[in-house]
Amino acid sequence: MNLFYQPLLPEGVFHLDADESKHAVRVLRKNVGDVIRLIDGKGIFYDASITKADPAKCQFTITSQTAEAKNNYSIHIAISPTKNTDRIEWFVEKAVEIGVDKITLIACQKSERVHLKTERLERVAVSAMKQSLKATLPQINGIIKLNDVIRQSTEHEKFIAYVDQTNPDHLKNMITHDASYLVLIGPEGDFSETELTLALQYNFKKVSLGKSRLRTETAGMAACHILNLFNS
Amino acid sequence: MNLFYQPLLPEGVFHLDADESKHAVRVLRKNVGDVIRLIDGKGIFYDASITKADPAKCQFTITSQTAEAKNNYSIHIAISPTKNTDRIEWFVEKAVEIGVDKITLIACQKSERVHLKTERLERVAVSAMKQSLKATLPQINGIIKLNDVIRQSTEHEKFIAYVDQTNPDHLKNMITHDASYLVLIGPEGDFSETELTLALQYNFKKVSLGKSRLRTETAGMAACHILNLFNS
Repeated sequence: MNLFYQPLLPEGVFHLDADESKHAVRVLRKNVGDVIRLIDGKGIFYDASITKADPAKCQFTITSQTAEAKNNYSIHIAISPTKNTDRIEWFVEKAVEIGVDKITLIACQKSERVHLKTERLERVAVSAMKQSLKATLPQINGIIKLNDVIRQSTEHEKFIAYVDQTNPDHLKNMITHDASYLVLIGPEGDFSETELTLALQYNFKKVSLGKSRLRTETAGMAACHILNLFNS
Repeated sequence: MNLFYQPLLPEGVFHLDADESKHAVRVLRKNVGDVIRLIDGKGIFYDASITKADPAKCQFTITSQTAEAKNNYSIHIAISPTKNTDRIEWFVEKAVEIGVDKITLIACQKSERVHLKTERLERVAVSAMKQSLKATLPQINGIIKLNDVIRQSTEHEKFIAYVDQTNPDHLKNMITHDASYLVLIGPEGDFSETELTLALQYNFKKVSLGKSRLRTETAGMAACHILNLFNS
């Protein structure tokens, strides 16, 4: 099944953009009267019937709509961007597939990258949303200072993943069901002690993600997977 | 910490290969008497002292060795190679980081790729082993027919991940501790009904990996992560 994405559907835009029009009409050979399925990235699936099979601006009319089932929990991963942008893009793809509500890129003391445009990450997220048949596009926030994320966090359960031989508390044992979660994932070289101390002051709990040493993007994906597994 | 890899250490080869010699001597500027840490891919960590800082053939003598802690369980993932080789390479990297014992590439009825050299996957696995500070290189088997994998399997707990709306059995609820596990992961388009039937005949259990539709490589990684999480 192919899903088409039109974020302006709730505002009454009843055509596909140029790329998706071309895909529908030229590649999939959709014609007038054919049924397509759309999402708005805001949690609604739409069935639609094509009214004009224009490869530049494919028009349709909505025949029905269904709301995506909502989770009783929410997952926010705040993660240091990786030096190699492929790796953070990969994290975004996998987090969206597995299930995530919000991703925030954070600038930490040891972050190797402090500039990164979110446009490309958003394209990756849209593609992963369609691929995994979801209707909600996670929010992706461009780089924010870690200290600001810590101070402004409003989630109920807040964690900082910290590699520490003496840390016995695995994330899977520290969470309660149906909460709003925020997990901080540091850069290669981890958070500084100053950053850890600030997080603990703001009631973040220090957690382990297992005994293996994981790369940043793997740690982010593991945290996301654990929170989903625990709640499903 | 940098780990150097010399698979022939148990056979008495006490020098690094050309790439690793160059890395040690030219990049890290190691000199005679400096201590380096090595792994043999067979579960042993070695401390060594450099005896000849030759950038083409760096020689050393072993000063001590330690065995890696062994798990009470083993994980074998048999997975259809992806059309895009980046994706299966990514799976190998992440599985090694998270923890896996054996990876077998399988040819299924709907596999989009039936030829793939394992050399590159082995290089990815070596790099991930070093990165995640492990001493054991997982076994990677080149493409084998799914039916042969099913018939020849010797693991105690055998699963086939199958996307099925009516399948209520999540892998996390179907495993017992400290076993040898095999999980079959199909191609895009999933296993055929004939393949599923054969697996069930051979006592594989049909399992779900969660409610999200996952790509092949994500499903493989998720299975690997669930088995590790459950046992740690």
